[in-house]
Amino acid sequence: MVDRVELSAQELAEQSAAAMWAQDTASQAMGMTLDSIRPGYARLTMQIRDDMVNGHRICHGGFVFALADSAFAFACNTYGQVTVAQDCDIVFVAPARLGDVLTAEATERHKFGRNGIYDVTVRRDGEVVAEFRGRSRELRDRNG
Amino acid sequence: MVDRVELSAQELAEQSAAAMWAQDTASQAMGMTLDSIRPGYARLTMQIRDDMVNGHRICHGGFVFALADSAFAFACNTYGQVTVAQDCDIVFVAPARLGDVLTAEATERHKFGRNGIYDVTVRRDGEVVAEFRGRSRELRDRNG
Amino acid sequence: MVDRVELSAQELAEQSAAAMWAQDTASQAMGMTLDSIRPGYARLTMQIRDDMVNGHRICHGGFVFALADSAFAFACNTYGQVTVAQDCDIVFVAPARLGDVLTAEATERHKFGRNGIYDVTVRRDGEVVAEFRGRSRELRDRNG
Amino acid sequence: MVDRVELSAQELAEQSAAAMWAQDTASQAMGMTLDSIRPGYARLTMQIRDDMVNGHRICHGGFVFALADSAFAFACNTYGQVTVAQDCDIVFVAPARLGDVLTAEATERHKFGRNGIYDVTVRRDGEVVAEFRGRSRELRDRNG
Repeated sequence: MVDRVELSAQELAEQSAAAMWAQDTASQAMGMTLDSIRPGYARLTMQIRDDMVNGHRICHGGFVFALADSAFAFACNTYGQVTVAQDCDIVFVAPARLGDVLTAEATERHKFGRNGIYDVTVRRDGEVVAEFRGRSRELRDRNG
Repeated sequence: MVDRVELSAQELAEQSAAAMWAQDTASQAMGMTLDSIRPGYARLTMQIRDDMVNGHRICHGGFVFALADSAFAFACNTYGQVTVAQDCDIVFVAPARLGDVLTAEATERHKFGRNGIYDVTVRRDGEVVAEFRGRSRELRDRNG
Repeated sequence: MVDRVELSAQELAEQSAAAMWAQDTASQAMGMTLDSIRPGYARLTMQIRDDMVNGHRICHGGFVFALADSAFAFACNTYGQVTVAQDCDIVFVAPARLGDVLTAEATERHKFGRNGIYDVTVRRDGEVVAEFRGRSRELRDRNG
Repeated sequence: MVDRVELSAQELAEQSAAAMWAQDTASQAMGMTLDSIRPGYARLTMQIRDDMVNGHRICHGGFVFALADSAFAFACNTYGQVTVAQDCDIVFVAPARLGDVLTAEATERHKFGRNGIYDVTVRRDGEVVAEFRGRSRELRDRNG
């Protein structure tokens, strides 16, 4: 029984992610890949391209944020309810550079009512690049 | 005398912005334009392109953040000291859509020591799309 | 007509504040006074007492936050709807000390749907001690 | 050797906490107790008193914040360097009430240079009351 329930939750997470991914042309256009998904969790990867950096080859903060934000969105949409970002904060720990492969790992910190808190860490080869926290809210219906 | 000092501050702001802009290939690649600059203030504009939206034509939060973050960066670098973003938070107020022209207006809230707090409002035709607050820190030398 | 509407809004703000204040024994116990109220705005004052400081006579951050949080609560409850704090962030700009009289001024930045964003600045003799931003949400009924 | 280094780190954490606690008359006046300390970690407890609540017996947000902020301060000062709070954000998850015994558990998320990020969860009987994140900065000398 327990196994079956957990499998269902995992299947729901995978189906939700697949449906989101098919629509998420922006994340695809930035070259992201969705590496891992499970209830309340997502891991995405993106390589820093030359249209994402400045003249010193340092990545624009917007693209580091975008990777974290996508991981957050996939993680909070693993329960079959359409869920949106309300607000996010990001601490920039170390610069990302041209060619870096960044990984964003989003974990659920707490769910309460229709609200959620997710922590996302962006890393390059294990080194932390940014720490992000997002707050989500479930919409009342699937058309939201 | 007062006029001359104020003109100098404005000239410094414009020169700093011009130097940053020349290097900021990422903001250029996203199609941003720098509309207005003065000490502690910047206004930038960007149109939402089809590589910035999902299948529902809604803009990825990362690009709304990127516009606000660029406005923040230009505003806090108007004093001739290299200044970087430490952390930022953003509240998503309304979705931005394909074709929308967004304007981000960054104003200085407070400077203290080497730290600064900047508020950025992102609007579409006067309607608020996002409210952003960034904290900056001056580096100790111009090579930072 | 316009005058009458504005008078009503002001009266509603004053009545809401008076009702809150009568119940807010915690703010009273901290020695706060409510100096000014209008729609979307509140100003409160508090003097730092010896039970609020450490051995170096520096105020515990919790009391600076409490003053800002009370100002936020009064400002967002000026429209006759019960409204609660969802989340808040505070930047500590300068230490407050024993005997300091702090003033917190809360202004409404943006309202959208049942949500609000309020900025609160805490000052001592005009000097900034802290910058606070709070997000509020209206409850659906007055019993909330 | 490894054991001895780890013991030293623990001793340093305990000595730092004891020195802070002796000075922290504000936390003592709020009735907090320091339950556990280790490098990058602190757990504190506080019971909600009648001077901390409003007429509906709900705790003022400032005291929930104060408990989290104290836990953060103790956790980030376990390395023998005087370290201060730069900014904090708090999400209020559930109301705390008169008589509740709240526990705040602060853990280190990431340290980089003189900066740190700490997550604090405030609970009542295991139920989450608030989620707090604080950013710290080491001062350059012990007189800071």
